[in-house]
Amino acid sequence: MGENEKWAGKSRALLKEKKVVMLNLIGSPGSGKTALLEKMAEKVSGAVTFAVLEGDIATTRDAQRLMAKNITASQLLTNGSCHLEAKLVHTALRDLPLETLDMVIVENVGNLVCPAEFDIGEHAKVAVLSVTEGEEKPLKYPLLFTEARAVIITKVDLLPHLSFNVDLCIQGIKQINPAIPIFQISPLKDIGMDACIAWITEHVSHV
Amino acid sequence: MGENEKWAGKSRALLKEKKVVMLNLIGSPGSGKTALLEKMAEKVSGAVTFAVLEGDIATTRDAQRLMAKNITASQLLTNGSCHLEAKLVHTALRDLPLETLDMVIVENVGNLVCPAEFDIGEHAKVAVLSVTEGEEKPLKYPLLFTEARAVIITKVDLLPHLSFNVDLCIQGIKQINPAIPIFQISPLKDIGMDACIAWITEHVSHV
Repeated sequence: MGENEKWAGKSRALLKEKKVVMLNLIGSPGSGKTALLEKMAEKVSGAVTFAVLEGDIATTRDAQRLMAKNITASQLLTNGSCHLEAKLVHTALRDLPLETLDMVIVENVGNLVCPAEFDIGEHAKVAVLSVTEGEEKPLKYPLLFTEARAVIITKVDLLPHLSFNVDLCIQGIKQINPAIPIFQISPLKDIGMDACIAWITEHVSHV
Repeated sequence: MGENEKWAGKSRALLKEKKVVMLNLIGSPGSGKTALLEKMAEKVSGAVTFAVLEGDIATTRDAQRLMAKNITASQLLTNGSCHLEAKLVHTALRDLPLETLDMVIVENVGNLVCPAEFDIGEHAKVAVLSVTEGEEKPLKYPLLFTEARAVIITKVDLLPHLSFNVDLCIQGIKQINPAIPIFQISPLKDIGMDACIAWITEHVSHV
């Protein structure tokens, strides 16, 4: 962990120097992290310039998916590891055109557990939870919801087909992290995106 | 890993002595592992006797949920760890009434990555993948699909509301593990359960 902290610190210094904000998106496989980024790029076009560091164990699909939408993206492969480490992120950060960016968004490996344990030099961790996963997940996987600065509940367009209890989910999150902002979105159906993106981009003004 | 292997070996010996099969269910948070077990208990009542070891980071919800359906279940808490280790499983196994059981099913911590790396003394790992997670997940998380002896695709009742491509998903799984049996189920709507349960219970005759 000492080695990881050292690299996280180097990234923090670099980001500060370049006046760039870095967020760390963490959620289960298929929770909708990439779809959120695609929609966000469409919505903030011109107003905020961001690049994405895509963390995956294997394949370059997600970076390709984003680049197809003209989003600056770089694929970070962990080769089996369940989370991104600070050194890999730092190396990738150095290759980004930071002078031209307001923000870097890291999409961590799909995993509700391990990525929450590792500092990668980000300004804020953001938890992404799909309504298909069940409302009790924050209580079952508390560390991420303790560490996160915001929770984004995704795929709310599927609610009519599920028994997911939104109130119970929010109650669970607030039990762990009482003052945390919570957004309910569907990038696919363009529900709740504006408030969520406003929170994300609001960070830009603070560095 | 040496220490883990030692405890896995002890469990294998114990299971052999007691003629009990052990399966290790692995999938993302909310992929439907517990719902599968609930439905299975209802379907095999009398024919196969099984107990469940419920792995979670926090809360005893899943074991309570199963016990409410008269399933013998024991909650294993990892206290933060992202997977079950063999020693914890072995200790819990010793507390089960193995003389009266045909099978023990371990529901691992919700995580598509780390549990696939750890032997807990099971006869077979079984991958559980929900259609809400996206059809490309086997290629993005290949280790589990290499290690597994079967894949159970869950929540197929939601397919009409999703863009999930079943054929592409199966193609991805077969690319990694060509001969693996794949089941498509919905415990909620009682779709595909019989073939899936037949595969699971068929293991009982082999020990």
